[in-house]
Amino acid sequence: MDNKHSIHMTIDEFKKNGYKVIDWIAEYYQNVDSLPVLSQARPGDIRGQLPDHPPEDGETFEAVLADMNEKILPGVTHWQSPNFFAFFPCNSTGPAILGDMLSTGLGVQGMLWATSPACTELETHVLDWLVDMLHLPEKFKSTSTGGGVIHDTASSAILCALLAAREKASNGKINETGFDGKLRVYTSNQAHSSIEKAVKITGIGKHNLRSITVDDEFAMRPSELRRAVEQDIRDGLTPAFVCATVGTTSSTALDPLTEIGNICSEFGIWLHVDAAMAGSAATCPEYRFIHEGLELAQSYCFNPHKFMLTNFDCSCFYVSNRDALIDSLSITPEYLKTKESKSNSVFDYRDWQIPLGRRFRSLKLWSVIRHYGIKGIQAHIRQHIGSAKALTEEINKDDRFELMAPTVLNLVCFRYKGSDEFNEALVQRLNDSGKLYLIHTKLNNKYTIRFSIGQTKTTWDHVIKAWKLILQETKTLEKNRIS
Amino acid sequence: MDNKHSIHMTIDEFKKNGYKVIDWIAEYYQNVDSLPVLSQARPGDIRGQLPDHPPEDGETFEAVLADMNEKILPGVTHWQSPNFFAFFPCNSTGPAILGDMLSTGLGVQGMLWATSPACTELETHVLDWLVDMLHLPEKFKSTSTGGGVIHDTASSAILCALLAAREKASNGKINETGFDGKLRVYTSNQAHSSIEKAVKITGIGKHNLRSITVDDEFAMRPSELRRAVEQDIRDGLTPAFVCATVGTTSSTALDPLTEIGNICSEFGIWLHVDAAMAGSAATCPEYRFIHEGLELAQSYCFNPHKFMLTNFDCSCFYVSNRDALIDSLSITPEYLKTKESKSNSVFDYRDWQIPLGRRFRSLKLWSVIRHYGIKGIQAHIRQHIGSAKALTEEINKDDRFELMAPTVLNLVCFRYKGSDEFNEALVQRLNDSGKLYLIHTKLNNKYTIRFSIGQTKTTWDHVIKAWKLILQETKTLEKNRIS
Repeated sequence: MDNKHSIHMTIDEFKKNGYKVIDWIAEYYQNVDSLPVLSQARPGDIRGQLPDHPPEDGETFEAVLADMNEKILPGVTHWQSPNFFAFFPCNSTGPAILGDMLSTGLGVQGMLWATSPACTELETHVLDWLVDMLHLPEKFKSTSTGGGVIHDTASSAILCALLAAREKASNGKINETGFDGKLRVYTSNQAHSSIEKAVKITGIGKHNLRSITVDDEFAMRPSELRRAVEQDIRDGLTPAFVCATVGTTSSTALDPLTEIGNICSEFGIWLHVDAAMAGSAATCPEYRFIHEGLELAQSYCFNPHKFMLTNFDCSCFYVSNRDALIDSLSITPEYLKTKESKSNSVFDYRDWQIPLGRRFRSLKLWSVIRHYGIKGIQAHIRQHIGSAKALTEEINKDDRFELMAPTVLNLVCFRYKGSDEFNEALVQRLNDSGKLYLIHTKLNNKYTIRFSIGQTKTTWDHVIKAWKLILQETKTLEKNRIS
Repeated sequence: MDNKHSIHMTIDEFKKNGYKVIDWIAEYYQNVDSLPVLSQARPGDIRGQLPDHPPEDGETFEAVLADMNEKILPGVTHWQSPNFFAFFPCNSTGPAILGDMLSTGLGVQGMLWATSPACTELETHVLDWLVDMLHLPEKFKSTSTGGGVIHDTASSAILCALLAAREKASNGKINETGFDGKLRVYTSNQAHSSIEKAVKITGIGKHNLRSITVDDEFAMRPSELRRAVEQDIRDGLTPAFVCATVGTTSSTALDPLTEIGNICSEFGIWLHVDAAMAGSAATCPEYRFIHEGLELAQSYCFNPHKFMLTNFDCSCFYVSNRDALIDSLSITPEYLKTKESKSNSVFDYRDWQIPLGRRFRSLKLWSVIRHYGIKGIQAHIRQHIGSAKALTEEINKDDRFELMAPTVLNLVCFRYKGSDEFNEALVQRLNDSGKLYLIHTKLNNKYTIRFSIGQTKTTWDHVIKAWKLILQETKTLEKNRIS
């Protein structure tokens, strides 16, 4: 944009339209509680309203905003509704939106330190802050041998961790000459699907991913891990990577890091810890137990976009030895050589991730930490975990329902004591009502309802209202069907 | 945010601060021309000003904005300056910023169709529009066997294309049982470093990436490709993937797609075409020749964030057979199963990319296409390519300089007829002046200055002013040194 009138939006037009977008966002948050949480659109509904051809001549931004209300919003599933209890939350907040706007406005691309030193240095700095805030091991700090970087998602973090581990296990040979022989990867049967995806992408293959059984609380059994590792070594295979989970997606189970870490140390296996959802809870001293044993890990990841009030995408990935990561991902053609890179005095974050380019994502995280302060983030986490514990008590009081896993943090897993079909119908009715959004998982092979509490605006009022709706729909279903 | 006062920003505070951010961005664009393009910060300068510890109590957003001016801006390399001629541009515009703000405000995560139908359907729709706008082959449309998806960068697109090709070549066996045997990948010695990165990530290995020689205009020699493929087949290796480039990073060379495509068809090799920078030029009929032969490709990518006025990140990736892509990346645990996914009536874009989660990125692209219309985008591209041709004439007029490659589109490659050291010193002086930012490459093993014209606000005035500065600094250097 510019002052002169041209094809571009003038600065005055930008300001006028920018204020309108701010008002639009404000109004959205004002009303989001009243919108159907899960979009009621059917496949093709949204596309069906859009013109077949792009316009030859430019249109006004007002036309875009009008379409947002009429055509786009009916197709939105409202992740920012306080009645969103599905998946894990994808938090948005005022300071995060504003911080992200600054990033969008600056439009810098921070692939190298030189292409915007502030983009790299603020990111390194804020990720060091988080090591202190969560009491993570010092080795994950940039001032030590390690360091942190912002990825889009935990899937990408796991992929990069696995690549570093793969190269360590093969002495860098796979990057050079390609795969030869078999590497083995281990995770619990409750771990996230991104591990299977990473095992495929890296050429290790799904058959070399060993799914370790879990105990009654869905945590990996270290004895089974040891058995699998020893068996593989006897079979001439190379154990390369273990992914332990702190807070599984199905039930927030906590794998025992100390025992797993000791096995990894004994056999020289890279340990990655995936705490995508749960990690943020360690901002509170009383929840730091979730990371017990983390000092044995080579890499770690948690997502502020899940439980630390920061807009998607923002996944914090740490390594204890940054050289291992950089060596596995670095490539430097002539046009990317700078004098600072050559001197090794700076980080070029392009070598810490899959893509080359990168946005200035630390601005939103910085803005969030400064707005809330450590105390504000702690209050947010305590309120949600408190609500989950209180909901658990409500469920315990009603003997038609059973809890399917311990409520470790902010996720409650339960089911109606009846058929899977009954529970499925219950979830369907609840979601169709538009009043809340819930999803299911399977635990012990039974259809289980997941009630995830973490959206910024969610309070106990929303939770108890949702529970009352669950009871009401249960009653209706009980009348209509044989459970 | 909410109306009630709590730890969160109230809606009124959000509006007040939001207007301030809009004003801040507007002022930034008003003044960006006068800021030193390449940040003059030294390593550690930015971090040195930041507090060692995060705040215990929350701060005001005003404090963040004050720090933006005092601490962050001096560390920013101004990609949005009209005097930014480095790398390829990373365009930002008013409508793109506003569209991205809408995405940030909504905060939806579009991993599945159901998690926001509008996020998936608008993306599919706009990417179909672009097939028409660029006259790409119909098979890349979602209404055919293919379809498009927005990735963060062309690096990720190439990685996904290579994964699909790898699985096709191995009949899906690598994903299942891991690597066994050798696959070969081919690209020109001028291709982007992301191909080497992808070859490493996928376990194929750098030694299996064959670097094909180029002709005098830096385009891949098809005869050399054929020779390499035939040799590899004789050696019992499997040719799996060719990456051809439309507009190389060093010099915007155009690989001959028809000849390369015919070889790929003959031997059943997956052809990916990387047109990250150049692709947008095909919005103008007179530049559609760059895509001649594209109908022979299985996948294609171009970046609206480079030359179509859309904020980073926005890379459009197309495949002609979406099943091949989805089969290589799909993973569906219980908690991601929806009735629409099971019915195959929708796209779940999580299966078209590396990460699981995704932002609502089509909003900014939609906003850009609607603001400019096809004619506005054409005017933008014509103005920049016109400026590059005019600069080429200026350089031709001065016999102290030589062109190092044809000016195909908006990149001019030249050097002072003297030592590499002279040219290096020239670039250093220019960048240190803060008045512009240029980078170098090597062509025919000589240090070559790359002058890339594509930033939104860049006009011929900026280009000619930069050229005069180059002449002036050359004169100073000629006086001081022996060339």
